[in-house]
Amino acid sequence: MNSSRERELVVLGTASQVPTRTRNHNGYVLRWDGQTVLFDPGEGTQRQLTLAGVSPTRITAICITHAHGDHCLGLPGVLQRLSLEGVTGPVPLVYPAAVEEYIDRLRRASAYEDRLVLDPHPVSEAGPVLHLPGLVLEARPLRHRVPTFGYRLVEPDGRRMLADRLAARGIAGPDVRRLQHDGVLLTPQGPVHLADVSDPRPGQRFAFVMDTGLCPEALALAQDADLLVCEATFGDAEAALAPLYGHLTARQAGEMARDAGARRLVLTHFSQRYADVSPLLAQAGEAFPDVVVAEDLARIPVPDRV
Amino acid sequence: MNSSRERELVVLGTASQVPTRTRNHNGYVLRWDGQTVLFDPGEGTQRQLTLAGVSPTRITAICITHAHGDHCLGLPGVLQRLSLEGVTGPVPLVYPAAVEEYIDRLRRASAYEDRLVLDPHPVSEAGPVLHLPGLVLEARPLRHRVPTFGYRLVEPDGRRMLADRLAARGIAGPDVRRLQHDGVLLTPQGPVHLADVSDPRPGQRFAFVMDTGLCPEALALAQDADLLVCEATFGDAEAALAPLYGHLTARQAGEMARDAGARRLVLTHFSQRYADVSPLLAQAGEAFPDVVVAEDLARIPVPDRV
Repeated sequence: MNSSRERELVVLGTASQVPTRTRNHNGYVLRWDGQTVLFDPGEGTQRQLTLAGVSPTRITAICITHAHGDHCLGLPGVLQRLSLEGVTGPVPLVYPAAVEEYIDRLRRASAYEDRLVLDPHPVSEAGPVLHLPGLVLEARPLRHRVPTFGYRLVEPDGRRMLADRLAARGIAGPDVRRLQHDGVLLTPQGPVHLADVSDPRPGQRFAFVMDTGLCPEALALAQDADLLVCEATFGDAEAALAPLYGHLTARQAGEMARDAGARRLVLTHFSQRYADVSPLLAQAGEAFPDVVVAEDLARIPVPDRV
Repeated sequence: MNSSRERELVVLGTASQVPTRTRNHNGYVLRWDGQTVLFDPGEGTQRQLTLAGVSPTRITAICITHAHGDHCLGLPGVLQRLSLEGVTGPVPLVYPAAVEEYIDRLRRASAYEDRLVLDPHPVSEAGPVLHLPGLVLEARPLRHRVPTFGYRLVEPDGRRMLADRLAARGIAGPDVRRLQHDGVLLTPQGPVHLADVSDPRPGQRFAFVMDTGLCPEALALAQDADLLVCEATFGDAEAALAPLYGHLTARQAGEMARDAGARRLVLTHFSQRYADVSPLLAQAGEAFPDVVVAEDLARIPVPDRV
């Protein structure tokens, strides 16, 4: 149920503002059991999907944080490709309500036979936005130069059934589902409560914190995240620029991961000025142990359940 | 004046419809003396420019044949990049008048500080469109499923001054320019006519024939082209599909180059079905000798003057 192959981040692009020889503009795919959620398709996402070995037809939802080009100019190519491949949807598309005009232009950016039904979810306030199978997508406003929302996927808490205790009580087959559903099962030996034969299994959480200055909402998105993808546009040397442009430093990302009790931090959205981002990794690492620098086409597992 | 380094095609992308691992969507740069003309910027053009070592800031004009995504979805990224780099223009933008609505959406596809003045040239009929230094851009309608124009760059015929004959008549310095301008120069030995001290130097021609079925306009664009870039979506085996979709086969491209008296043919815009395009090269080669298969990031010289 939770192998790294089934819950992983596939990195499509990691550049802010200007793509480089080694970094495409942003693009991130979260593979989570049967879901394939595409975040912030920057220009070139269609081809990066091919290079990463992810079929566009598997996309189950698309989330856009804001309308800067490095986060959304790949949307037309993805939507047109889905139509071309015969995907009819509906595919949920989540974006800040304030950027509706851009979404509209991106949807009709060039001539094609549009066969895809989109299910638009304009977001205008913090809260749950969308229910996916086994997951709830939440959004919170971030602090950037244009209207921006970050996202968080939450798996509801569940319970892990204990096979030995079930067997000891002679519960098997459809009775297990009945017990899970009703919370109690009448057996010849008397009532069995769900808590008698299962342990709590906390849901996992994924957070996507893109362009923002430091703010409580970013921290709230990151809270207890098993995997936190966070922008780290700048390093320490450019720390003064970060609030001016509404961005984070790698160190701030590390401190946020620590303060939020996250488990694994993925740094991305690097300024082109850093040919070598290892200092950013080190700066974040001083605050938080499990840090990964996102590289294009990397696959980063969601850590297994505790 | 005409080394291959100064007149060359830089190939950015060569895929029709769907990009592949080795072929980006379309994109072509013609470097011609001081001009850098960008044709059909498909998605990812901004990054392909970086990979090809062409600075976007050098672009002197942009031409779009039609509004299918593989020919224009890279326009927003290029325009936004020019603004970001402080290019103020004006930069001529040439496109079929019928696709104005798409151009408008592509220009405002995402949020950015627009500092670039564009000089729009919507094209609605065959003829000259734009005068660049030492070049005239002509357009002709093609036969595709949507409004499409092909382009042709024509260097006006000139004359090659003959140093020995000038010297024999004692003509030097500003007198040479005076003679070139007036066609005749009065010297102590009598009048000297331009034809006495120069040979004709035919202008060179570049043709860009993108998505089209076979038609007289495509042939007219290709006429006497020193370098002809031509779509070759299909091979012989799919020849029946070509007219249905408004495309050419590689063989038709070769025959057109032959019939037009072109000098060098560049095949491109390949269907993703061809992992190996060498059969297309062979098929075109049966009709025309100097054929090059465009590969991403290749530089193809305009043949030197005859």
